[in-house]
Amino acid sequence: MFSQFKERKTVAKGYGFAGTILRVNLSTKDIKKEPLNKEIAQKFLGAKGLAAYYLFTETKKGVKPLGPENKLIFMTGPLTGTRAPCGNRFCVCTKSPLTGSWVDSHSGGIWGPELKWAGYDGIIIEGKAAGPVYIWIEDDKVTIRDAKWFWGANTFTTERLLKEKHVGNRMARVACIGPAGERQALLANVISEVRAAGRGGHGAVMGSKNLKAIAVRGHGKPGDLIADPVKFDGAVKVAYDKLGKSPVTGPAVKGALSIMGTSNIIRGINAAGGWPTRNFQTGIFEKASEIEGQALTKYLYCPPVSPGMVPCWNCPILCTHLSVIKKGKWAGFADEGPEYEDVTLLGATCGVFDREAIAVAEYFCDFYGLDAISIGGTIAFLMECYEKKLIAQKDTDGIDLKFGNADALVQAVMRAGAGYGKLGPLVANGSKKAAAKIGRGSAKFAIHVKGLEIPAYEPRAAQGMGLAYARSDRGACHLRPWTAGAEMLGLDGINPKETKGKAQLVKVSTDATAIAFDSTGICLFVAFGMGADDVFNMVVPATGFQYKDFSEFVTIGERINNLTRAFNTREGLTKKDDTLPYRLLKEKLPSGPCKGQVVKLDKMLPEYYKLCGWDKTGKPTKNKLQALGLDFVINQLYG
Amino acid sequence: MFSQFKERKTVAKGYGFAGTILRVNLSTKDIKKEPLNKEIAQKFLGAKGLAAYYLFTETKKGVKPLGPENKLIFMTGPLTGTRAPCGNRFCVCTKSPLTGSWVDSHSGGIWGPELKWAGYDGIIIEGKAAGPVYIWIEDDKVTIRDAKWFWGANTFTTERLLKEKHVGNRMARVACIGPAGERQALLANVISEVRAAGRGGHGAVMGSKNLKAIAVRGHGKPGDLIADPVKFDGAVKVAYDKLGKSPVTGPAVKGALSIMGTSNIIRGINAAGGWPTRNFQTGIFEKASEIEGQALTKYLYCPPVSPGMVPCWNCPILCTHLSVIKKGKWAGFADEGPEYEDVTLLGATCGVFDREAIAVAEYFCDFYGLDAISIGGTIAFLMECYEKKLIAQKDTDGIDLKFGNADALVQAVMRAGAGYGKLGPLVANGSKKAAAKIGRGSAKFAIHVKGLEIPAYEPRAAQGMGLAYARSDRGACHLRPWTAGAEMLGLDGINPKETKGKAQLVKVSTDATAIAFDSTGICLFVAFGMGADDVFNMVVPATGFQYKDFSEFVTIGERINNLTRAFNTREGLTKKDDTLPYRLLKEKLPSGPCKGQVVKLDKMLPEYYKLCGWDKTGKPTKNKLQALGLDFVINQLYG
Repeated sequence: MFSQFKERKTVAKGYGFAGTILRVNLSTKDIKKEPLNKEIAQKFLGAKGLAAYYLFTETKKGVKPLGPENKLIFMTGPLTGTRAPCGNRFCVCTKSPLTGSWVDSHSGGIWGPELKWAGYDGIIIEGKAAGPVYIWIEDDKVTIRDAKWFWGANTFTTERLLKEKHVGNRMARVACIGPAGERQALLANVISEVRAAGRGGHGAVMGSKNLKAIAVRGHGKPGDLIADPVKFDGAVKVAYDKLGKSPVTGPAVKGALSIMGTSNIIRGINAAGGWPTRNFQTGIFEKASEIEGQALTKYLYCPPVSPGMVPCWNCPILCTHLSVIKKGKWAGFADEGPEYEDVTLLGATCGVFDREAIAVAEYFCDFYGLDAISIGGTIAFLMECYEKKLIAQKDTDGIDLKFGNADALVQAVMRAGAGYGKLGPLVANGSKKAAAKIGRGSAKFAIHVKGLEIPAYEPRAAQGMGLAYARSDRGACHLRPWTAGAEMLGLDGINPKETKGKAQLVKVSTDATAIAFDSTGICLFVAFGMGADDVFNMVVPATGFQYKDFSEFVTIGERINNLTRAFNTREGLTKKDDTLPYRLLKEKLPSGPCKGQVVKLDKMLPEYYKLCGWDKTGKPTKNKLQALGLDFVINQLYG
Repeated sequence: MFSQFKERKTVAKGYGFAGTILRVNLSTKDIKKEPLNKEIAQKFLGAKGLAAYYLFTETKKGVKPLGPENKLIFMTGPLTGTRAPCGNRFCVCTKSPLTGSWVDSHSGGIWGPELKWAGYDGIIIEGKAAGPVYIWIEDDKVTIRDAKWFWGANTFTTERLLKEKHVGNRMARVACIGPAGERQALLANVISEVRAAGRGGHGAVMGSKNLKAIAVRGHGKPGDLIADPVKFDGAVKVAYDKLGKSPVTGPAVKGALSIMGTSNIIRGINAAGGWPTRNFQTGIFEKASEIEGQALTKYLYCPPVSPGMVPCWNCPILCTHLSVIKKGKWAGFADEGPEYEDVTLLGATCGVFDREAIAVAEYFCDFYGLDAISIGGTIAFLMECYEKKLIAQKDTDGIDLKFGNADALVQAVMRAGAGYGKLGPLVANGSKKAAAKIGRGSAKFAIHVKGLEIPAYEPRAAQGMGLAYARSDRGACHLRPWTAGAEMLGLDGINPKETKGKAQLVKVSTDATAIAFDSTGICLFVAFGMGADDVFNMVVPATGFQYKDFSEFVTIGERINNLTRAFNTREGLTKKDDTLPYRLLKEKLPSGPCKGQVVKLDKMLPEYYKLCGWDKTGKPTKNKLQALGLDFVINQLYG
């Protein structure tokens, strides 16, 4: 295994890696370029895996998420910036101020590839700048620069200004926070090139470090990064062929993602009775036909597979859809999206079926740098509080915050972004904090896990999603793993009401997701057209790493998941945190195919722990950690 | 004279010109590159002058401004894109749908230089595309492209999308319209690189042609464009030295423009009793201290002369000020500006002293592609109608449109941009149309000339400005000429109440402005640090043109002004159109140093006509036209 590395202590450029980690300490202004250690790369591959290693080993137990000791890590994977289809991802990792847990959020676009082409696999941000700064990277030149002059600006303007400021022979690429992140609002995210690394409040961490943006320009080429170009090209060709022929990912065969974007699944999810409506009170939205994929494509999105679309770098799927609002009071607003998650949380979950209002609410989430999923979820929670008279207009700045009020939705998002009034901060810090402030039993229907709002799949209509949400490493996440396709869209014919087999499904899928997508730098959406094994077939020639077989590759995913689990355990999270809101565990789904269901978490969680090799409290056992080569974790968890 | 051209029939690149005019017919899709004729260049120099020649000779009398026969001309001057300080201007010229007259509007930024570097002095747009298109220019490659996919988008998003779409080895530059222009709103303008070619509704003309944008990338170099580089460099050095030492334009000596931007003059203009307040009801705003230059610099603008400022290309003055709204409901909005004109018309003229609201109103003018001056003027007019109960909340979509209502201001701008409700179209088409619709004597206080709203200098406090407004070729313009400095700021100690000598001042200054600034491609603001003769000293080595003396140069300005005058005469404009609103002619200024004054236009206009060599109706005489070499005009005006 890893025979290429016998003679090398560090990963060299041309092995799927740039070979260098950039370390920037904002307190001391030290800038270091560290060779990427081969042992680490062997064990954790890249992106999420690598970042988990650094965060675990470099932060101390109990680190304050918004303190200078917390670290903020931007990391790419070995396929980022290569010719692998959709090899455009990077992740942002830190200890979340929203959940107190590990968080990794991922983004496409082109910032990740640009960082790699500049010569870096990732950046570790340490400390806290004395005043607002941004980091400017042009290949080997890295400087910390004054950001006072645009501190306060929205993300769109920030990107524009930095591109203009750093005009050169190649467009600079920008990842930044908006005013929400500057204010350390807990739902603040990082926006890069109008795409969001969305969940978990790392925008607040970036703000706490007085870091407004990272702008980068790189002159490397995708081809420079490959260990075995001939074999790699062969594997890439197979991947392209599969994606192109898939009824989901193939533009030429009118793939659903290409034609309708992520919103293509709304019909199916609503039909399955699992479309979160009015703060998860029901799983069917009676107005779904107004805002499902075909309606959006007809009335809001730019023409499908338009020659003008601007997809993520090197993406053959083309799921990006530009929305241009052509009528009504918001005419003229335009932005990429809204995605399925946005339409759900800002739409159905808030009872809103005004397409334009949903699109504008999403626009402003990007504008201010806010997680649209959590913002929508929190507004929905507050709408229910308002309808239940737990809050009144005196608490909402006079806004009539009832379900379905499209204007109220937009106003609430704008106030959250601006931090304005009483309503703004209530929305901007998430439903857990809001429930704590409101009290009066509201926590029962604050729909989050560990503080992170539940995304766009009603788990009572998909038991596996319930388990997925309850124990994912960053709180309620729909992507680690995404069992909704198998359970709700009939992709694999799995019964959504059944608990049997779900622990296994969640375990296996989480490990595969962690390695094949979240640690390689390739977009998860390729999974609609090809398998994790096809990704594996690209990773091998890209890195030159040798594996016995695919299962050894998946084991890296298991290692990564144990490491993030260990991080959370170290930070004090236990079984009691692996739970779901009262509503989902106790209140029966009132209608639809899964009518009468609650999430039977007790039937799945112990089995899941066992499959993972964790004890009854959800703590990774010494044996498991040892077997995965995580001895350095044992020391910290078992003293 | 013009001895270099003896052997050349066309202007060659390297004589201050790119040497080529691009002609794009959107009806036929014909794209032609025409050599720039030396005779024309000799007679009209560039920018405004050249465009006036083309528009006059290529359109027929009575051409409908929004019909396919109207032409839309983008033109640079011989200093555009050269190393001349502030040599970054281009103009957009057409027959205005707002005034029915000639209009040229100018913009800085970098689009003009980029066009020149791509190899074109200007573009003549003809016809009308069958559907939404944009033009993409990369050096000699010019194509007409589909714009359906982003038709409807605001100008910021449009710029971003086209830059992304045309990523290359140099950032593409974009001039575009927003949704206002698409709807052919009469106050629609052209935005390029977040700067406005603002006045006269050419955005509507662009919209009428279904032309969303012109994106351009050029690989030429500034140095390529100069006839005599050594002499040119010497003249440029003199210009830089003068600008650098000026107390207005020198950043190093804390020049007022550099430190406070254009808003630096608010104090002085208000003190002179000439700051248009509440629709020109008074000339003093009691809240001026809240929004004058120093207050804006303290609370709104980015730090003065910040290292991060993004000025127009090759500008040593640095008047650009970024505003970042840091508090209140609009926190997070950020844009270049608001400029003096914006602060006046959206602020004092509407009775608004909320800095953030003014900045946001200006942001949305840019966002939708609207002329902020005319929008502010029209809203102020409607506010007066509302307070006089000529319109009510049923006409304003329920908005309480009283003077000083900052929220109403922003809402009115947004509705104008979106074309929404009853109020939107009322604002978006200007005060003349609004007054015609409202009737009931409102036209008496609709403050426009020929349909173009009067800008930020109260003419009862400066007789010369009154004359300037009344007879300028594009309606009420503050820049052809700008006598406000001489009359109101005491720059030349000229008595603002006096009418004597003003005709001469206006005549001479208009000719100098037309040639030295509006036709060379250099920013008018250099005039605060150097003279028109210094511009002349750069034009000569740039073009290689020989002149007897400076006065011969100014005569080109006179020729240009007679040509645009002749255009207006041909279109039916006469002395009756060279007038001012009732209020300014009949109602005495109620307070301030010029209390009791009205504009005594009758005392100045006949003298002005005489000085110009025009007859008593304001029509250029045959003799004058002949003397200026405008024989082709005589044929059209005198049959």
